[in-house]
Amino acid sequence: MDVELQLAVERLHARYAHALDSDQLETWPDFFTENGRYRITTAENEARGLPLAVLYAEGRAMLTDRVASLRHANIYEPQRYRHMVSAVLVERESEGTVKSVANFLVVRIMENGETMLFASGRYVDRIALPEMRFEERVVICDSRRFDTLLAIPL
Amino acid sequence: MDVELQLAVERLHARYAHALDSDQLETWPDFFTENGRYRITTAENEARGLPLAVLYAEGRAMLTDRVASLRHANIYEPQRYRHMVSAVLVERESEGTVKSVANFLVVRIMENGETMLFASGRYVDRIALPEMRFEERVVICDSRRFDTLLAIPL
Amino acid sequence: MDVELQLAVERLHARYAHALDSDQLETWPDFFTENGRYRITTAENEARGLPLAVLYAEGRAMLTDRVASLRHANIYEPQRYRHMVSAVLVERESEGTVKSVANFLVVRIMENGETMLFASGRYVDRIALPEMRFEERVVICDSRRFDTLLAIPL
Repeated sequence: MDVELQLAVERLHARYAHALDSDQLETWPDFFTENGRYRITTAENEARGLPLAVLYAEGRAMLTDRVASLRHANIYEPQRYRHMVSAVLVERESEGTVKSVANFLVVRIMENGETMLFASGRYVDRIALPEMRFEERVVICDSRRFDTLLAIPL
Repeated sequence: MDVELQLAVERLHARYAHALDSDQLETWPDFFTENGRYRITTAENEARGLPLAVLYAEGRAMLTDRVASLRHANIYEPQRYRHMVSAVLVERESEGTVKSVANFLVVRIMENGETMLFASGRYVDRIALPEMRFEERVVICDSRRFDTLLAIPL
Repeated sequence: MDVELQLAVERLHARYAHALDSDQLETWPDFFTENGRYRITTAENEARGLPLAVLYAEGRAMLTDRVASLRHANIYEPQRYRHMVSAVLVERESEGTVKSVANFLVVRIMENGETMLFASGRYVDRIALPEMRFEERVVICDSRRFDTLLAIPL
């Protein structure tokens, strides 16, 4: 077992979670490589092999655009999110890449204080070494409900 | 602190969670030793020293039977589960065994997309070395409600 | 990356979670240094720089008093709690101190078996080395609702 690599990947997950939960969306594209891909899909679509994505972005420019439009859309919605990450599996793929699977749970806290389960699912990642950025992050949500899911990156 | 052992136990927890959440129930008995014991109980019974178990299985053959009956019973229930594991404490017990305690939270996602808290509690495990399989896994659920708890292994 | 330090901090988080969830409140002050500070606040107050705390205690004597009053107040409320900790970031601050940020989620299980999301937020800690005790633990809750939050330490 590569102890250093395991903990480095867990640290990447942790930094990502804190960036989103602290509303530092502008730093979000920095978690990806220059041409990094980000995709949100559902477990149902993934199981059926459907290429449909709820959200797809490729490259930091698109990710940055995404943040800009979120900033515009969400200006009046002061909810908070809290990301929990668990069960991080790490597997070396090649000299320059590592694969990781992890479970996540996100709760949403509304302005009035109400807390709800917002999303759960799996991260399936390919991470570039040694820079520790996502070449690809696929967010596979357990639920098919997406009316509110598009509010923030997961 | 035995860094390798800590991470090896965390990896076992992670593999177990992903196997269940990916509906790979047939691999579940492989997480146990040949005569491994699996028990689900409640915190209330455990605190009172009651030997009552909500579920008890001993040995891979019984665990395999359990999976078979779940497959039969659950054929029409396409819900999903997501296991979160946290606060993993590891303690060497002997040359060939390690004890571990961990917190868990399981959410259930229904076919219609609704997500709910399904179960929470503690895993109390004895793990055989070096094979990293459960000699005993005791699942101590916080809640006494069990009408739906028996749907899947925890 | 200091592997040993990372895992030592995670172990501290884990022991703390299990102590609270096992209702071993009397051991709670031992997680702090002699003059350790404990503060619960809200993300809203923290963001505005308001010094208001929902709860403040300094030194083991005050923490011990707090436990005593909880024992008195909670005598008729047999609910349980389950702490999940995730995304633990660790940063060496000096020879004798380390800083840590982590996400938490606490569920509450009522006597009748009902499970609910109780609190979510961030731990922001300063930990004394080598004794691994909190010089300061700030619990920043996402929600502003506190009618029930004061039941137990978080």
